[in-house]
Amino acid sequence: MSPLHVVILAAGQGSRMKSALPKVLHAVAGLPMLHHVIATARQLEAEQIHAVIGHGADQVKAATSEQPVNWVLQQEQLGTGHAVAQALPDLPDDARVLVLYGDVPLTGAGTLEALVSQIDNDTLGLLTVTLDNPQGYGRIIRDDEGKVTSIVEQKDASEVQQQIREVNTGILAVSARRLKDWLPQLSNRNAQGEYYLTDIIAMAVEHGMRVAVSQPGNAFEVQGVNNRLQLAELERWFQRREAERLMTEGATLADPARIDVRGNLSIGNDILIDVNVVFEGEVELADGVSIGPGCVIRDAKIAAGAQIKAHSVIEGAEIGANAQIGPFARLRPGTRLADDTKVGNFVETKKTIVGQGSKINHLSYVGDASLGRNVNVGAGTITCNYDGVNKHQTVIGDGVFVGSNTSLVAPVTVAEGATIGAGSTITRDVSDRELAVARGRQRNIADWDRPVKKS
Amino acid sequence: MSPLHVVILAAGQGSRMKSALPKVLHAVAGLPMLHHVIATARQLEAEQIHAVIGHGADQVKAATSEQPVNWVLQQEQLGTGHAVAQALPDLPDDARVLVLYGDVPLTGAGTLEALVSQIDNDTLGLLTVTLDNPQGYGRIIRDDEGKVTSIVEQKDASEVQQQIREVNTGILAVSARRLKDWLPQLSNRNAQGEYYLTDIIAMAVEHGMRVAVSQPGNAFEVQGVNNRLQLAELERWFQRREAERLMTEGATLADPARIDVRGNLSIGNDILIDVNVVFEGEVELADGVSIGPGCVIRDAKIAAGAQIKAHSVIEGAEIGANAQIGPFARLRPGTRLADDTKVGNFVETKKTIVGQGSKINHLSYVGDASLGRNVNVGAGTITCNYDGVNKHQTVIGDGVFVGSNTSLVAPVTVAEGATIGAGSTITRDVSDRELAVARGRQRNIADWDRPVKKS
Amino acid sequence: MSPLHVVILAAGQGSRMKSALPKVLHAVAGLPMLHHVIATARQLEAEQIHAVIGHGADQVKAATSEQPVNWVLQQEQLGTGHAVAQALPDLPDDARVLVLYGDVPLTGAGTLEALVSQIDNDTLGLLTVTLDNPQGYGRIIRDDEGKVTSIVEQKDASEVQQQIREVNTGILAVSARRLKDWLPQLSNRNAQGEYYLTDIIAMAVEHGMRVAVSQPGNAFEVQGVNNRLQLAELERWFQRREAERLMTEGATLADPARIDVRGNLSIGNDILIDVNVVFEGEVELADGVSIGPGCVIRDAKIAAGAQIKAHSVIEGAEIGANAQIGPFARLRPGTRLADDTKVGNFVETKKTIVGQGSKINHLSYVGDASLGRNVNVGAGTITCNYDGVNKHQTVIGDGVFVGSNTSLVAPVTVAEGATIGAGSTITRDVSDRELAVARGRQRNIADWDRPVKKS
Repeated sequence: MSPLHVVILAAGQGSRMKSALPKVLHAVAGLPMLHHVIATARQLEAEQIHAVIGHGADQVKAATSEQPVNWVLQQEQLGTGHAVAQALPDLPDDARVLVLYGDVPLTGAGTLEALVSQIDNDTLGLLTVTLDNPQGYGRIIRDDEGKVTSIVEQKDASEVQQQIREVNTGILAVSARRLKDWLPQLSNRNAQGEYYLTDIIAMAVEHGMRVAVSQPGNAFEVQGVNNRLQLAELERWFQRREAERLMTEGATLADPARIDVRGNLSIGNDILIDVNVVFEGEVELADGVSIGPGCVIRDAKIAAGAQIKAHSVIEGAEIGANAQIGPFARLRPGTRLADDTKVGNFVETKKTIVGQGSKINHLSYVGDASLGRNVNVGAGTITCNYDGVNKHQTVIGDGVFVGSNTSLVAPVTVAEGATIGAGSTITRDVSDRELAVARGRQRNIADWDRPVKKS
Repeated sequence: MSPLHVVILAAGQGSRMKSALPKVLHAVAGLPMLHHVIATARQLEAEQIHAVIGHGADQVKAATSEQPVNWVLQQEQLGTGHAVAQALPDLPDDARVLVLYGDVPLTGAGTLEALVSQIDNDTLGLLTVTLDNPQGYGRIIRDDEGKVTSIVEQKDASEVQQQIREVNTGILAVSARRLKDWLPQLSNRNAQGEYYLTDIIAMAVEHGMRVAVSQPGNAFEVQGVNNRLQLAELERWFQRREAERLMTEGATLADPARIDVRGNLSIGNDILIDVNVVFEGEVELADGVSIGPGCVIRDAKIAAGAQIKAHSVIEGAEIGANAQIGPFARLRPGTRLADDTKVGNFVETKKTIVGQGSKINHLSYVGDASLGRNVNVGAGTITCNYDGVNKHQTVIGDGVFVGSNTSLVAPVTVAEGATIGAGSTITRDVSDRELAVARGRQRNIADWDRPVKKS
Repeated sequence: MSPLHVVILAAGQGSRMKSALPKVLHAVAGLPMLHHVIATARQLEAEQIHAVIGHGADQVKAATSEQPVNWVLQQEQLGTGHAVAQALPDLPDDARVLVLYGDVPLTGAGTLEALVSQIDNDTLGLLTVTLDNPQGYGRIIRDDEGKVTSIVEQKDASEVQQQIREVNTGILAVSARRLKDWLPQLSNRNAQGEYYLTDIIAMAVEHGMRVAVSQPGNAFEVQGVNNRLQLAELERWFQRREAERLMTEGATLADPARIDVRGNLSIGNDILIDVNVVFEGEVELADGVSIGPGCVIRDAKIAAGAQIKAHSVIEGAEIGANAQIGPFARLRPGTRLADDTKVGNFVETKKTIVGQGSKINHLSYVGDASLGRNVNVGAGTITCNYDGVNKHQTVIGDGVFVGSNTSLVAPVTVAEGATIGAGSTITRDVSDRELAVARGRQRNIADWDRPVKKS
């Protein structure tokens, strides 16, 4: 089998995006379009991926620096044929070449495999799609036997040809040898003065090659993005597909039209996801997890049976089995909650380990802390972890009871079984089973006259 | 009139749900599908409701224990005809029998009444539906006079028959006497080796009975659920209908596609419901109530003119007229707010009574408390109601002013007209018109050097 | 050019709205329907706008008091012709008159300009629309040359006429002189006993006038509102259009079906708006602003590069460049944040100025305050700005460090570079570089026995 090389055209400006960002870096499902195309090319096990860049080339390279891509610079944008031609020196003669587009992000790997599998030295693979409204696209002309004979652009199409609904997607696969023969022969004598890759179809037919046609399962697979309306359409199609995947895998979605997955969401069985949840990055939900309405969850691992209630925002956290989180919980990176823990409303945690059965139920900030098992943190507790320049640790032992409205001035340790009186500011360590209190004495003053309203 | 018995088939496994929960317990609008079907049967005033259960029988019974149902166990799942046959011993000879399905949850009672009203000893009632895409369903075959003569399954249908769009729903009504004659005659000589209830249609025609056909108002009424995609479709249809009901009754919905009602929501006139509100359980909204975006409201009674602002989460609460709640308020069970009260952002209440005109505007936790009229609770106030094992009461009289950042260590009483100084921890009762202060004395230390950054 | 007068019919009751509010005051996109129609009339540069009111006239006038409208009272509702007749005395003979409807809120000014531009003394302008389902509407009858000859109401339409899909919208334009001739001739001998404005079309044809037809770009432009379902449909169409405008201007919307704009939202380039954001009033977003899911933003000005994170509620605030707000931030009116500021979770600000680089990251209430540059406000800080009757100022200088859980009892000033110890209640001013501490001394008591569970 000859090696597969993928050439991705990613040099266009995308002026209709009205953006300082090069078009191919605009995101679908949280990932630049170009990354989707590269990921698909990798699924095809391409020997090499060449990306032809031009407008905003440095930005594109910087945003894609972690990808194994051979960058090809197209200094001037002289058409798709010219763009592919820039990559010719890097294509071995015996390669099969698949041409993709950085602004056509969601073509399925299976669709492309079917396309590529058909080509050989005498066969060019062409991806076409049948549209309800083919207006504006190049029509696929076939002879009586159904063989593709040419592509006719909208402006050149006769009345009869305009009825044809099968159109060119621009995606094609052909041997490098043929490309090297034909691309130099392309002409730019046309209205735009550009070199069109599509013109090699006519050359192929002329040379007696077969044109093997494939079609995608869904027209969205070949939809390109020229403006933000099209970007939003693809985003919604992606999300609808993702919702269907989750439901097929065993999640109940309150509304498949109101979930967003930007990254990788892997799920166990019997997951419940309420309306308007947003997942980002790498998220794992084990069996029986339920997620309430309006939650935003990024890079998290949530163990079996945990309940995340309404409007919780979670990032970079691990949550133990049967934990109860929220509503209105904010778990920040470095939060690790053991099994059977509770974090309640208006509570923020950060770089904090919480032991099994411990509870932080209300209005607290717990950062840079380590809590043992069965700790009860009262409402309004604050770990004073920051002295303005450095962060310090708070260590709380098993079974500690922290009274409400307590300030824990770190670094500080409250040992096992200790009790902190409500309203205390704790600045010194507390030993096992000690009670620590640090508050003013109460004075009651009779017949107090309140201030009066100033006129 | 002969008595109506309803047989609900609820024994199936539902393996495509990929769930540990029996299929009929999966919820639409917060209620197991089986409960919807039972509720509909009760609306028909059935003399008895028989539920045929098998897979997960114990789970089904446990989840449905409050419903007046005669449980019939189908040990092996040998087909719909076999399932109904299990109930035969419990059906009186003179009964009319309506067969429903635990996974077809949303059939309207009116649709079924129309079906059942037609049957007698010589007439079988059959519910059919006309589908745009009848693929896969049994087609209804009629003679030249329009009489139903048979049902032809997809695999047996001729080209011409496949064009028929009227299909069998499986729901039928027939006299118990006929069922007792026919069910024992069913054969399982078919591809699946099952006894099909549908086969009694042919028997009825053969015996010269009339088949009286009804149709539902909407195809969703007879849609069954085999996987979570279908579950979500029915959920959405249910919610769309509910949204239409609310708008017809006098509610303005910012977006009828973004409201969820799981339970009973009863409304007055001129209600405003903003986007993404979720209602659960029993909720009553009186005239002129407005609900802001993203609120979640469960088991609540909200009086006229109250405003619930964005992202409030309310459960088990009563809210007085013209109260102003939220944004970001969390009212937990046992909260009873009088008229003209205010509960503001990042405030949690629980088992708390608040008198007319009182305000808890910011960042507070008030639990196990009773507040009089015109109380002002400052920001950051915490009732320390829990000593680690027991809960205690906080009682606050009319006109009390609680300064900010106060801890009220329960049990404690602050009498009428008293004032609490900001930042106090109150551990002893405060009498009428007293000022209570409990905080440390302020010391200012000159030329303080802050910590420096550790390298 | 003869002057344009617009007559808006706004007298109807709208009983199907089930509302105490007159129909024309029900809102689309946050604005009463009547206001939309008046705004459109003003875009047409009408010399005078006449609004014919009846049901709830006082309410309508009160809600529209800021608009330059000539109110015309229709005592009894005797039909559209009668309604327009009430305005005749106020229409100069040489005027062109455009008749609009207070419950048809979204007709485009361009559509109406096209309509009005055609009329003269011998030409009546009629707005028609072609509907897929014309059922119930008056059909436009044209002769062989395509000239409009009459309008036939549904109930009078022959089978053939019922196939006509072009229908009357009720919106028309004609010279005042003609109106004054014809309106007095209208008859109320019809089923409803009403005077119909539509009947003047027949009169116009009879008198040999030309009927010049225009059509709107979209049927929603001429959709009237009779119930809240139709209100919601128009709301959604408005919002869809608004979403498309934003995307065209350079905003990426995570979901164009999940954004609500009620007022004027003006945007820079490369704006990101996540799902379920609601904008109200006047909002400006500069280049590169991103808005997280679930935010509610009213009357705000947000400078370049600022990030507003999930579930923030902002009203009446100015936010500086590169500020980081939320999640769960609540900015209330009078909040002015300089560049590079941070306001974090569960923080409320009100009438507060925050200097460049300052941070209020967690669980705080800062009201009636002025903060300098590079101030750090610790978690749980409360400005005690309210003594029960008056509000007082808190002034904090550059570089101040406020320890966590601090209460600042206003009026109070903390001067430049000062430090406040955690858990302090500050009642006296703090000078430059002073450390202020005000808290109880910590006592640790050994072998403390916790309370035991009461039986």
